[in-house]
Amino acid sequence: MSHTSPVNHPRAGDPVFDLHVGGKLSVAATPLEGKEDLSLAYTPGVARVCTAIAEDPALTQHYTWVPNTVAVVTDGTAVLGLGDIGPAAAMPVMEGKAVLFKQFGGVDGVPICLDTTDTEEIIDTVARLAPSFGGINLEDISAPRCFEIEARLKERLDIPVFHDDQHGTAVVTLAALTNALKLTGRNPESTRVVISGAGAAGVAIATILLEAGVKDLVVTDRKGVVSSERTDLTPVKRRLAAMTADLTGRSGTLAEAMAGADVFIGVSGGTVPEEIVATMAPEAIIFAMANPDPEVHPDVAHRYARVVATGRSDFPNQINNVLAFPGIFRGAFDARASAITEGMKLAAAEALADLVGSGLAEDLVIPSPFDPRVGPAVAAAVAEAARQDRVARA
Amino acid sequence: MSHTSPVNHPRAGDPVFDLHVGGKLSVAATPLEGKEDLSLAYTPGVARVCTAIAEDPALTQHYTWVPNTVAVVTDGTAVLGLGDIGPAAAMPVMEGKAVLFKQFGGVDGVPICLDTTDTEEIIDTVARLAPSFGGINLEDISAPRCFEIEARLKERLDIPVFHDDQHGTAVVTLAALTNALKLTGRNPESTRVVISGAGAAGVAIATILLEAGVKDLVVTDRKGVVSSERTDLTPVKRRLAAMTADLTGRSGTLAEAMAGADVFIGVSGGTVPEEIVATMAPEAIIFAMANPDPEVHPDVAHRYARVVATGRSDFPNQINNVLAFPGIFRGAFDARASAITEGMKLAAAEALADLVGSGLAEDLVIPSPFDPRVGPAVAAAVAEAARQDRVARA
Repeated sequence: MSHTSPVNHPRAGDPVFDLHVGGKLSVAATPLEGKEDLSLAYTPGVARVCTAIAEDPALTQHYTWVPNTVAVVTDGTAVLGLGDIGPAAAMPVMEGKAVLFKQFGGVDGVPICLDTTDTEEIIDTVARLAPSFGGINLEDISAPRCFEIEARLKERLDIPVFHDDQHGTAVVTLAALTNALKLTGRNPESTRVVISGAGAAGVAIATILLEAGVKDLVVTDRKGVVSSERTDLTPVKRRLAAMTADLTGRSGTLAEAMAGADVFIGVSGGTVPEEIVATMAPEAIIFAMANPDPEVHPDVAHRYARVVATGRSDFPNQINNVLAFPGIFRGAFDARASAITEGMKLAAAEALADLVGSGLAEDLVIPSPFDPRVGPAVAAAVAEAARQDRVARA
Repeated sequence: MSHTSPVNHPRAGDPVFDLHVGGKLSVAATPLEGKEDLSLAYTPGVARVCTAIAEDPALTQHYTWVPNTVAVVTDGTAVLGLGDIGPAAAMPVMEGKAVLFKQFGGVDGVPICLDTTDTEEIIDTVARLAPSFGGINLEDISAPRCFEIEARLKERLDIPVFHDDQHGTAVVTLAALTNALKLTGRNPESTRVVISGAGAAGVAIATILLEAGVKDLVVTDRKGVVSSERTDLTPVKRRLAAMTADLTGRSGTLAEAMAGADVFIGVSGGTVPEEIVATMAPEAIIFAMANPDPEVHPDVAHRYARVVATGRSDFPNQINNVLAFPGIFRGAFDARASAITEGMKLAAAEALADLVGSGLAEDLVIPSPFDPRVGPAVAAAVAEAARQDRVARA
């Protein structure tokens, strides 16, 4: 009556594959103990619940699982560092995301891997699914399509829509940077920041840092600083240039941008040579977040920087999205928020940064994902911000 | 951290609504006990599973939850007897279906309520979701759109697609009728059958009875027997007429069809007057399956019929789809079937009928939904038929 047993599968004995046998999710359902239960949970009783919701759609919040569910939606085009591996191969990551949603936020995540990479088709498909879910978490959809897909869905739907590769990363980065600036006696307004990588994460980090008060900020791609002096910019990068490098008149190469910079944030997957790292300001801050190979190896980074963070769990200061997305959706759901606002993201970052408290040190600028305070603290801050931003319905 | 508690909701104290607080489903996820687990279930470990599936898509069967999941898809247009109540109000029924899938088949059902009623949009949306699921159960989609949606999806996808309102009902009806014919000493070839209702269930029941050997069969709608003598038939009803009434040359009113008929099967929701019921053949068989009001009340039916069945749980012989769909999908999944064939449906009906065995009697022509043998017996028969029909991959 069930599928493959753990001792009988193609890669038995490999701990990663052993853990994945049968997948990582299942549906837990209210058990029915007899005819009576059946007639309450299904016909004829259920008809009264349907009729009540048809008359007052707000009752969905009470009598269905919808308000606690999030669709984890991908098209499989930008999965981890693996790239465009397609929807079937993306499923283990989406299941993993749902595992994290449940464990760290009590949110019911449902993986949806789409057999299309067309922007319009993705938007239409997700919009048609919307009555089934309390929120939409977009995941591993490649840039620049991810920007338009998120923006259009936010406009079209009245439930939270959140592209985690952008905003989850941005929230955790801001939290860690807030503490790193505090530790090195800087304030955002007078800090010079270089972000390497103008994809989903780079754009979102730039946006949230500007909101947090950073004034001198450039984003670089493979061709150097994204500035309007260049003639090769996509529409997304033109907007990015206008709100970053153009404001300070900066342009040129990554090396030129790094000279004297206070903060380096890597979300590119490239490598920054040591001689360039060496030109940063004293007491520099280096967040080299590419996985599994950071843009600057921590051993090298520590020669020049006071605070070093990576995306890896085997070094201190792991910038891990799991610190943000479960609590953000938990908070949004608790407030019955119709959207996730900029204020809610900033509140999440602040709550995360605050959790470090008096433990603040070079190797502790961000809490551990397994710190049990993280989910509740982020959720409470996000729910409160939802109320302040008037998107809450509870 | 969680939503509404059972004592605090708008209809507290009403057992149906109390049972529905928070919905009837949740996602159960593999728990992570620390960094080590996190690195197996998510990055970096999960990347190896993704890569393996990208190289060999068949590994999806082993390392994701996909092969055990079914999307329970509706557009909310024909929900129970309530009609077109929309996708949000349909959710409690879809959750209920998922509860039954789990309890009676060990299948993970995910409710998908679509915000569209357009045939092409439904087909495209479901097709794009297909990589996420092991099968598609269409539910409560109104006729005639349901026929085209199912047919086109079956053509387009290589996973089981099953419209339960058609085939679940047909399988259980055939099982009960098989035993009723046995009890009354009839064989299908010489039995005259009238089906009242030419919607999803009526068409599917007609189809499966013909496959089971019935020769003299008419289907009626509000205007009488569906036959080619009429000029008002839709394309679906024209095909239905050609394979039923036209073969015997019958036409006319329901009353004319019922005179001398051996079997009446009601899936219409109308009422058949007693004086018409009185004209049936001796030892008649009446399956009056409309809910909550059978076309012929069992008290009336018993005056003229030897075997009476309904859709209700408070009378003997309940024709309940839950006897079929969980075991059918369980069997299809166990065989890794690429489709649900006619042979698999007939095998399910035969297995169900056989379970009654030596207990066969007027008030026991079909097993109880809570008979624990039902799911496994149907599943085994369906898996075996999938192998015989060469749609099995295991």
